[in-house]
Amino acid sequence: MEKKYVHGYTPRESERLVDQATTLSEILHHDTVYPAGAEVLEAGCGVGAQTVILARNSPEARFTSMDLSGESLRAARERVASQGLSNVAFQQGDIFRLPFGENRFDHVFLCFVLEHLPRPADALSCLRRVLKPGGTVAVIEGDHGSAYFHPDSSCARKAIQCLVDIQSGAGGNALIGRQLYPLLEEAGFREVAVSPRMVYVDSSRPGLVEGFTKNTFIAMVEGVRDEAIRTGLVDETDWDRGIRDLYRTTGKHGTFVYTFFKATARK
Amino acid sequence: MEKKYVHGYTPRESERLVDQATTLSEILHHDTVYPAGAEVLEAGCGVGAQTVILARNSPEARFTSMDLSGESLRAARERVASQGLSNVAFQQGDIFRLPFGENRFDHVFLCFVLEHLPRPADALSCLRRVLKPGGTVAVIEGDHGSAYFHPDSSCARKAIQCLVDIQSGAGGNALIGRQLYPLLEEAGFREVAVSPRMVYVDSSRPGLVEGFTKNTFIAMVEGVRDEAIRTGLVDETDWDRGIRDLYRTTGKHGTFVYTFFKATARK
Repeated sequence: MEKKYVHGYTPRESERLVDQATTLSEILHHDTVYPAGAEVLEAGCGVGAQTVILARNSPEARFTSMDLSGESLRAARERVASQGLSNVAFQQGDIFRLPFGENRFDHVFLCFVLEHLPRPADALSCLRRVLKPGGTVAVIEGDHGSAYFHPDSSCARKAIQCLVDIQSGAGGNALIGRQLYPLLEEAGFREVAVSPRMVYVDSSRPGLVEGFTKNTFIAMVEGVRDEAIRTGLVDETDWDRGIRDLYRTTGKHGTFVYTFFKATARK
Repeated sequence: MEKKYVHGYTPRESERLVDQATTLSEILHHDTVYPAGAEVLEAGCGVGAQTVILARNSPEARFTSMDLSGESLRAARERVASQGLSNVAFQQGDIFRLPFGENRFDHVFLCFVLEHLPRPADALSCLRRVLKPGGTVAVIEGDHGSAYFHPDSSCARKAIQCLVDIQSGAGGNALIGRQLYPLLEEAGFREVAVSPRMVYVDSSRPGLVEGFTKNTFIAMVEGVRDEAIRTGLVDETDWDRGIRDLYRTTGKHGTFVYTFFKATARK
């Protein structure tokens, strides 16, 4: 499963994921604060991009950050240590076979994880099992179908669709953000509340032009170039035009929109 | 031009436009409040759906509500009178040949108007002329390309595309929301600030399921059924399936997303 992770495991890719977390941390995480003594499971912590934000925002809470990949966990451990944070324990493990007993955690947090899993509702059911009754889950996912822009471009839309198709072929779902409500309901959670977080970018917001449109979104699309061309999803000419057209949306008269979905629910 | 107005002029359609304005008035208009004595031009007031909200929210401001259609103006005048509002004067007129001198108004407001005009930046330039130096413009537009939903459906997307194509064929632009920033810049305004207003609907929000997804959005798409089929944009089977799939998004496990764009700027 690890080798199929659509966003890759290269150092450059890790940096992109960290850049993304830094740029978006306020919009996505400002309202996730856990009280002193709370036991929080971060499921699918990856290289720790969100872990450092969580641990910093809730310094008195105790985090257990889990990932399937030992290599990612090592990177996450280093990142957390380099920030001088001491409220995070790491654990290698699989969401579908959690190495924890029932009713173990007060809260569960997962961010950009369900999009990569073949059975996201089952994953949420597994996580619900280790949550104490009354405990909460917080889920954050993107939705690549929420991206639109000016000037519009069919090649740019096709390039994004390549990412959607490749992620789907790897058993994931890049359109999962809009589905958080039914997924959490299906997994048996109650009090499901979805809060969309739109990122709107125009040239009056240069930080988002660089930090989000170029270095997060377009960089992510560019990451599947070789696979998209190799597997025949797109030809090189259309791909290059699509990427050029995505960059055109970062110009003086361009605009770009993307929406993340954050959901909370209770066991 | 009047007969080409894509949303039609039937009484039932007028009611839809009023329902829409009522449901969305908080999200779209809560932050439009004009001070006592301000002279405000509402350009393209139509049947007065927004006029009553504007006039009620700013009871001490003086509105001049203008429309090309005498019939719409009569409906608007009746609606305003029936609400007991006395701070609105009506004027028939064309945005491209405004019946006002330069520097006449403190503020200009327009909502769901640019989407129907062939040269929206020119329209904004014309409106800028009648604005006093330092005066503001507020523009609200939808963007049908911002609509996405779960379960996804290619037929539903095709039905929405029919509306986009028909509006485009009539000289309008149903994807104009994302373009407000460059349009206002092009028209010479400064301090352009765009504020997207997303409407996210799931079954925990029954008021929006009924008031927005069904009675505003799907009703609007259904309004072009005959023209879409007659002009061959879609066949009857796909159309009916598309509409059925749109209604499916209003079920227990469905979700629906649409975004309006509100922009303000200064002369």
